[in-house]
Amino acid sequence: MTGSGSVKFKRAAFLGMGLIGSSLARVMKRDGLVDHIIACARSGETRETALKLGIADSVTDEPKVAVSGADLVLLCTPVGAYQDLIKKISANLYPDTIVTDVGSVKQHVISSIRPYLPEFVHFVPGHPIAGTENSGPAAGFDTLFENRWVVLTPEPETEPAAIKKVASLWRQAGARIEIMDAIHHDKVLAITSHVPHLIAYTIVGTANDLEDQLKGEVVKFAASGFRDFTRIAASDPIMWRDIFLNNQEAVLEMLGRLTEDISVLQRCIRDADGKKMEALFTRTREIRRSVIEAGQHIPPSPKDSY
Amino acid sequence: MTGSGSVKFKRAAFLGMGLIGSSLARVMKRDGLVDHIIACARSGETRETALKLGIADSVTDEPKVAVSGADLVLLCTPVGAYQDLIKKISANLYPDTIVTDVGSVKQHVISSIRPYLPEFVHFVPGHPIAGTENSGPAAGFDTLFENRWVVLTPEPETEPAAIKKVASLWRQAGARIEIMDAIHHDKVLAITSHVPHLIAYTIVGTANDLEDQLKGEVVKFAASGFRDFTRIAASDPIMWRDIFLNNQEAVLEMLGRLTEDISVLQRCIRDADGKKMEALFTRTREIRRSVIEAGQHIPPSPKDSY
Repeated sequence: MTGSGSVKFKRAAFLGMGLIGSSLARVMKRDGLVDHIIACARSGETRETALKLGIADSVTDEPKVAVSGADLVLLCTPVGAYQDLIKKISANLYPDTIVTDVGSVKQHVISSIRPYLPEFVHFVPGHPIAGTENSGPAAGFDTLFENRWVVLTPEPETEPAAIKKVASLWRQAGARIEIMDAIHHDKVLAITSHVPHLIAYTIVGTANDLEDQLKGEVVKFAASGFRDFTRIAASDPIMWRDIFLNNQEAVLEMLGRLTEDISVLQRCIRDADGKKMEALFTRTREIRRSVIEAGQHIPPSPKDSY
Repeated sequence: MTGSGSVKFKRAAFLGMGLIGSSLARVMKRDGLVDHIIACARSGETRETALKLGIADSVTDEPKVAVSGADLVLLCTPVGAYQDLIKKISANLYPDTIVTDVGSVKQHVISSIRPYLPEFVHFVPGHPIAGTENSGPAAGFDTLFENRWVVLTPEPETEPAAIKKVASLWRQAGARIEIMDAIHHDKVLAITSHVPHLIAYTIVGTANDLEDQLKGEVVKFAASGFRDFTRIAASDPIMWRDIFLNNQEAVLEMLGRLTEDISVLQRCIRDADGKKMEALFTRTREIRRSVIEAGQHIPPSPKDSY
């Protein structure tokens, strides 16, 4: 439904049309929030899929063509591609255009593209905390952001009206908004997202390096915990490479704390210190309860989607 | 359905009636595989719940009372309680009774209870690779074992007819059977289950130790990967304490490999080695595909349950 007062754009340019971009495009199409969506993607298959799914009205492989005349530009590629993109489009951006993004790191994104953005556009960095292990435009669905948080990390001088418009767009997608400092965002996400992914990638990699017979059995008996790690470790490799490269400091700090804690538990097992283990495992159960209370325990699913 | 030739018991004694025990009891009741189920539990609440749910015909807190006259004895407590239990019941076991268990470690289970088991009973160690993060008799459901593996680790001298009976019981619950050496089982499970749980416990513990504001945000933004870890780390503390205490060697070996691999990735991030990361993250995606092909990617859910 397009409620009165809901946000409306004339021309939205999606630079990148993967899981996140295509899910938001679905919402904008569903709710009539935009007159025209142009999707820019290097892959011909992605452009074709976007047209076929009806989530883009036109497509191009030229970023500067995509943004010409757009009042909303959305950076939806892996964050490592942002700087090149901005260099390509900066001369074609219109005054008062809103530029936003969906990247999982914010501090480095801001510092790497800020110098190339014209003064007359409004930059509102954003991060929807939602996703699945699947990628590509066909993997998106219009309920992906429902009941999820979107963190916006605007700079102090950003026009409040622009922030409000981006917030309205995400609210229309069912999300809740949190405004946060970029440095703080990167610290929180390092522990809730980046380090867990890093560990999942590592543990699945460790299993992959086992001798062949054992490896086959690991897959066969995956249901016992390993399953969840393989799902996390199936996420988009380029996207995650870029996240670790661009949130180096916070990730290394949190990883340092984690490896210390692993050593403590390792020692517990070696010393057969059952009491200490029991205490730790009981504390962690409490955290799960808090997550359930916060309504963040149910994974998103594409059913009932556009 | 009770197909012709399906297994049948007169009196099944469940020592412990948690998630796994109560799920199997539901199957036995549903399919008429037993005349009488007696549940033994220390907790009055568990005994009451078992009666109320109709998954036990009688209850007791005396192990030796439970096993008297039973032709099937199922050890369904955390493995750390096994030895005491066997000492208590050994004088009351009947000849040709089948004793089996559902513990997640096998080598240590066998060595700790074997000396106390009379020669005239048939011991068939078992491990259903199925579970959820919930515990207690009310958390069970009769479809928990469908399409899951049950590993049996009988000793060379075990009566084949007894192994066959236990296998039939699990097949009736929808499971597939794998016969394996206990030492090998413990190695496979260390990597597919024990180490993943240990890491999940650690990472959730690390988050729990953060300063208060950050901790609140970790819970709020759990949807980004951390969520899956909190679910794993919500598993039964006593059960997991006992697993780590009883599979010390294999867990420490696999954990050693894992921490080496974490160090490699840590160095990758510090050196900004994007190429190496991308290669690793691409390899792990393949493993996920194998898990999906093996049909082990769907978590169990209690819908359509007894």
